[in-house]
Amino acid sequence: MRVALAQINPTVGDFTGNLARMIDAAERAATARAEIVLFPELAVCGYPPADLLEKEAFLDRAEQSVANLAQWTAEAGRPAILCGSVQRSGVPEGKRAANVAVLLAQGEQVFAQTKRLLPFYDVFDEQRYFEPAGTQCLTTLNGHAVAVTICEDAWNDKLFWPERRYAIDPVDELMQSWPAGEQPRLILNISASPYWKGKRGVREEMLGALARRHNATVAMVNQVGGNDSLIFDGSSLVLGPGGEVMARARSFEEDLLVFDVGAHGNQRTIAGVLRDERDEIAATSEALVLGTRDYLHKCGFRRALVGLSGGIDSALVAAIAVDALGAENVIGIGMPSEYSSSGSIDDARALAANLGIRFDLVAIRDIFTREMAALEPLFRGTEFGLAEENLQARIRGTLLMALSNKTGAIVLTTGNKSEMSTGYCTLYGDMVGGLAVIGDVWKTRVYELCRYANREREVIPRSTMEKPPSAELRPGQKDTDSLPPYEVLDPILEAYVERYESAAEIAEAQKLNLELVESVLKLVERSEYKRQQAAPVLKVTEKSFGLGRRFPIAVKVQV
Amino acid sequence: MRVALAQINPTVGDFTGNLARMIDAAERAATARAEIVLFPELAVCGYPPADLLEKEAFLDRAEQSVANLAQWTAEAGRPAILCGSVQRSGVPEGKRAANVAVLLAQGEQVFAQTKRLLPFYDVFDEQRYFEPAGTQCLTTLNGHAVAVTICEDAWNDKLFWPERRYAIDPVDELMQSWPAGEQPRLILNISASPYWKGKRGVREEMLGALARRHNATVAMVNQVGGNDSLIFDGSSLVLGPGGEVMARARSFEEDLLVFDVGAHGNQRTIAGVLRDERDEIAATSEALVLGTRDYLHKCGFRRALVGLSGGIDSALVAAIAVDALGAENVIGIGMPSEYSSSGSIDDARALAANLGIRFDLVAIRDIFTREMAALEPLFRGTEFGLAEENLQARIRGTLLMALSNKTGAIVLTTGNKSEMSTGYCTLYGDMVGGLAVIGDVWKTRVYELCRYANREREVIPRSTMEKPPSAELRPGQKDTDSLPPYEVLDPILEAYVERYESAAEIAEAQKLNLELVESVLKLVERSEYKRQQAAPVLKVTEKSFGLGRRFPIAVKVQV
Repeated sequence: MRVALAQINPTVGDFTGNLARMIDAAERAATARAEIVLFPELAVCGYPPADLLEKEAFLDRAEQSVANLAQWTAEAGRPAILCGSVQRSGVPEGKRAANVAVLLAQGEQVFAQTKRLLPFYDVFDEQRYFEPAGTQCLTTLNGHAVAVTICEDAWNDKLFWPERRYAIDPVDELMQSWPAGEQPRLILNISASPYWKGKRGVREEMLGALARRHNATVAMVNQVGGNDSLIFDGSSLVLGPGGEVMARARSFEEDLLVFDVGAHGNQRTIAGVLRDERDEIAATSEALVLGTRDYLHKCGFRRALVGLSGGIDSALVAAIAVDALGAENVIGIGMPSEYSSSGSIDDARALAANLGIRFDLVAIRDIFTREMAALEPLFRGTEFGLAEENLQARIRGTLLMALSNKTGAIVLTTGNKSEMSTGYCTLYGDMVGGLAVIGDVWKTRVYELCRYANREREVIPRSTMEKPPSAELRPGQKDTDSLPPYEVLDPILEAYVERYESAAEIAEAQKLNLELVESVLKLVERSEYKRQQAAPVLKVTEKSFGLGRRFPIAVKVQV
Repeated sequence: MRVALAQINPTVGDFTGNLARMIDAAERAATARAEIVLFPELAVCGYPPADLLEKEAFLDRAEQSVANLAQWTAEAGRPAILCGSVQRSGVPEGKRAANVAVLLAQGEQVFAQTKRLLPFYDVFDEQRYFEPAGTQCLTTLNGHAVAVTICEDAWNDKLFWPERRYAIDPVDELMQSWPAGEQPRLILNISASPYWKGKRGVREEMLGALARRHNATVAMVNQVGGNDSLIFDGSSLVLGPGGEVMARARSFEEDLLVFDVGAHGNQRTIAGVLRDERDEIAATSEALVLGTRDYLHKCGFRRALVGLSGGIDSALVAAIAVDALGAENVIGIGMPSEYSSSGSIDDARALAANLGIRFDLVAIRDIFTREMAALEPLFRGTEFGLAEENLQARIRGTLLMALSNKTGAIVLTTGNKSEMSTGYCTLYGDMVGGLAVIGDVWKTRVYELCRYANREREVIPRSTMEKPPSAELRPGQKDTDSLPPYEVLDPILEAYVERYESAAEIAEAQKLNLELVESVLKLVERSEYKRQQAAPVLKVTEKSFGLGRRFPIAVKVQV
């Protein structure tokens, strides 16, 4: 049997566009003589639809898309379609919707399986919307038994996971439901599994273990593309019964992977690549480019503005924006103050030249002077401090937004995860913007990504990479005036923000002074209010700021 | 048996403070000779703890609090304690935590019931954290059978609800578990049920139906106080077996309600009030005052800044702030531009005088001129438009934040729900602030709340109430230049934002032109990005902006 995995990039809610994309891929699968073409979880509406699922019209349109796809399969010689959609659950009590895989062939829906294991951790809220199935259903395709599973339903093998999220294993139950000797030799899995660092390796190992356990070929088709904070990497997979990867679809772009599978589970790749893409710096870079491009395009923007300070964060964001949008669609804005070093403007200008982007200067010194004069009656007798520092950052934010309103270009926020963690950033100042491109990238990793950006030629100026980080909001300021060096800071933050370790655990594991650790963690606790007003953060780690990390503000927390 | 309902105001994560509060209430219950004192759901840690539940130390501290409370009950003559806490679930697969009611008596934990029906809709995420119980456990107290339930476990009576969220009814199961004739005549319910308009009436009717159905006295103790967006109203209740309300605790403040219940379910109120508080304008006003006070105090703020435009929204927010914090802790800031009418400043000044608050003026005209001069090379040849309008709002936001940084007072945001729905507000401009006090109040309801604020004397100037709403960002501007009149707009928005009706349904139900409705709904869809960067909104309706309403940004939506 010839199977095609159609790794598509849907837009949430764009039923018309998604359907066109699916039919286009299905036609290419037909040309390749596939007998079945698979689409990702919730492909007709895009993942994650969130509360759009509460709207009746949304459910209606999903059902209409499935009917249209079924109609497409009516013509002789066309492949069957297995795709993800949302349907009404039909239960009298409980959730109205169900997350389903529907099998469409010869003009009809011939089979449907509702998802059973509904993730509800980190960014996932599926139990908010979906009624789970109680059982797995058996089906055959062209005479072959096949196991149809949706995303996490195939992610709960007790032999693989030391700790499991759910008590049941749908794949195991499904296999047990068949008479001995008649079990499927092909497990199909339609997924919407977002990227984070290391995830592709985990998927391969986990699905490999599943293939070995059930002595079956496993084929997983994954969504690709950015939807708000989430970046789906694609990386669809075919694994042989020995657990070996037989084919990988491309990461971070659409692809069609076609393979043949025999009655005994052996298969042959017709179209697809077999390359190991475990370099996570390259992957993070590609993820951020895709996430930026899709966020802008799906929101209707073509162009982006980046405030260029001459520092490394804004340089990296500008480089990502150029990869995502093209140099002609990125504008760098330098906004020097009296505390900006001349080197900073030179660095910003050099970066813009390296990237081939337009660069404009708007000096803030006079505006700052004027604002301070207006505030003088109320500030009289106080010393230069936080208010004056933040004021500069906020004037810059205001100017960027004025340019955004005037030009229709979106502002990209340049703060990194270390700053967002500690609150070393100004709300309504440098936090201004529509998308926090590197808000899930630790400062130490920002350097790694810059070295990667410079792998072929100098894009980010050497002096930007080498100078000590500074916000340049008062004379001679350095980040290390307020924070430990990033090589010390980042591992502390990573342990606390991503793994929820306590101060005592971190101090012991990292052999650090407890008071130092506590002082850092208190910064994290005190800045939650800033993060809750931040732009969406592109997620590239297992725990990023945003919907996957829900903390109250008005709390007392012991670190 | 004498029962005390201790309606307390905990702070999330403040184990020490919450414990002290609980012991203080328990001592007052002991003085009133109660045999048992009840505390709300998750009382030891405060509700909702959100992802703090993922931290081991948080679970440890909750268990320590329960141990301390058990210890308190060891002394002879002291009442038993029934309180909510979080415990480790102990299941090998699934969620680590359980939402429990523990019964503590004579120094020991004598009973525990884990919550079964875990809400996962609107603002509730309990299935993200908690493993549900499979069954209800039977217990007796001083020889009486009692039914112990947690919040929503008593909210699923199929005879009351036309549609149910869950298929099981824990109270019914519990009653059936007892031999006939021995069923409990007392149902205890510990809750953390946030306020929204109309909720108190629903609770009374629902619990009344429960009492009648099971021929039992029902006693419900509810949390009180603001925790971020949520405002818990308290309003604890005792209902007789006939469903009649026997006693209500106060709404929006701490209270201790004490009553006697006989072997046949008859009871007598010892301390408590019986007043019907269904006036939802008064309730909304009290809710906003409590929500503002608690957010500030629990975050460590004493003072607030409000930008006073002379308009009705900022006037109402200032009045609420004065009720919440005292006039001495509220500062009004007027920030006129060349487009401000002289009446606006007079109105703002009159309001400040009426409220007895400090009022400062910072003119923005020169700053605006200076910013426009800085932008002139980039703006040359363009017309005055959105960029220039927003720039004024953002200068005001910047000034307010500078004053906040300088004085340590928090900025209160003054936007209403109509503006937040349509995006008729400036991100980083008038949206600046730590708390969106009236972000869940429709403009038409803002007027009602202002009339309520003026019920005894003129607080909000008559001219503020009577003039046509305007942002005053260009000459002669009126809100109705861009939007339908609020009496038309608000019902459209309410149907779409709160009830998810479609454009066609709204046009038909409200007898409006479909194009008009669609044009309004498109404004809602286009402004989701602003709402995701908004300050926390105090929730006073069943569907407010924030965590309870989760929509993607980069989408195509048909309205």
